[in-house]
Amino acid sequence: MAEYKLHYFNARGRAEVIRLIFAAAGQKYEDIRFEREQWPEYKLKAPLGQAPFLEITQKGKTFQLGQSMTIARYLARRFGLAGKGPEEEAEVEMYGDQITDILNEIIKIHFEKDEARKAESAKKFFEETLPNILRTLQSKIEKNGSGFLAASGLTWVDLYLVDVLGWLGEKKEHLMANFEHIKALDTKVTNHSKIAEWLAKRPQTPM
Amino acid sequence: MAEYKLHYFNARGRAEVIRLIFAAAGQKYEDIRFEREQWPEYKLKAPLGQAPFLEITQKGKTFQLGQSMTIARYLARRFGLAGKGPEEEAEVEMYGDQITDILNEIIKIHFEKDEARKAESAKKFFEETLPNILRTLQSKIEKNGSGFLAASGLTWVDLYLVDVLGWLGEKKEHLMANFEHIKALDTKVTNHSKIAEWLAKRPQTPM
Ligand SMILES: N[C@@H](CCC(=O)N[C@@H](CS)C(=O)NCC(=O)O)C(=O)O
Ligand SMILES: N[C@@H](CCC(=O)N[C@@H](CS)C(=O)NCC(=O)O)C(=O)O
Repeated sequence: MAEYKLHYFNARGRAEVIRLIFAAAGQKYEDIRFEREQWPEYKLKAPLGQAPFLEITQKGKTFQLGQSMTIARYLARRFGLAGKGPEEEAEVEMYGDQITDILNEIIKIHFEKDEARKAESAKKFFEETLPNILRTLQSKIEKNGSGFLAASGLTWVDLYLVDVLGWLGEKKEHLMANFEHIKALDTKVTNHSKIAEWLAKRPQTPM
Repeated sequence: MAEYKLHYFNARGRAEVIRLIFAAAGQKYEDIRFEREQWPEYKLKAPLGQAPFLEITQKGKTFQLGQSMTIARYLARRFGLAGKGPEEEAEVEMYGDQITDILNEIIKIHFEKDEARKAESAKKFFEETLPNILRTLQSKIEKNGSGFLAASGLTWVDLYLVDVLGWLGEKKEHLMANFEHIKALDTKVTNHSKIAEWLAKRPQTPM
């Protein structure tokens, strides 16, 4: 039996996909959240000086992992949410890296201070980059018939996709109108009993 | 027996780590390189509309993978360059994601058109971000005694680290003076007979 301690700011941010994986797996963990002012103290503990990071204790040994995607893949493999076989597992990881590219772009636009650049980046993102990616994901969901990104069923990237769609705010509804299969996946994931339970009880934070 | 076709621009870029993995594994593959003008035609074939992508044919079936890190991890697992056991494999992936964060920053600075912002980003990167990361990697190499990032020996992230250090140009020598263990790793990897062979024969490209 392993024990897990997840460390992150009091935010969904780059840690929420990890929390969703724990939720879907029904795995207990400590959800340690700190405020900005406490970060310097946690930064010293973090394996790469960044958050999120995960502390795992098993067979009396403790080790730490940083990098949100690395943590997500590691836990997904443990909990059977990584896809079936090396090829599907790689395909799932590919969608994971792709969704991270989206999230990085969302974060970049969010923190851009130059209003002209912000508007230009947002335009390109919402009119080109994002619809293109959603089109790819949608055709994949449609083709494999499982209702999820992987043919074998629910994997961690479905959780990640739903999580990142949540960043789009009011733009989400409008976008979803063109992507019925993604919308159906979103509904299925958010109605999954363990996920729904987490979504209902999780701390409400702006990001 | 699988057959591999790697597709990318005629550049090292985000594909070189994959070529280094093939080289270290002594695995034959088709190194398909295209020019900017040919990209629209390849873009249609690319699983995510981006390069690099890999086409793998095995047991009469062909499948495609996009996302450089996903391709690198998949091949590394196949060729025994992913680390030993799930925990070391995750640790290795963590360094991979970390080095990608560095590479993304290098690429961002490279393409920044506003000179003031470029100078500011470069200053922060070379004086803070990069030394901090190198310090973490160096202490890890020192601690595990193998001379590589993983205690068990050479993995794909050693190749990736050496590759990305190559992006630093003339700044590299100066930086390496403070990181003797990373410098030793760099020397060991570039002198590895199969890697040395690839480095000597690979096409010379500006990036
Ligand atoms: N690629 C990394 C990015 C990590 C990252 O940027 N973390 C931010 C918070 S979202 C952080 O730790 N910032 C504080 C700092 O760097 O000191 C991941 O996915 O985990
Ligand atoms: N995160 C992706 C990034 C891929 C990417 O940005 N590829 C660029 C070349 S380095 C590309 O395909 N650009 C042309 C395009 O997007 O049409 C990866 O690591 O593979």
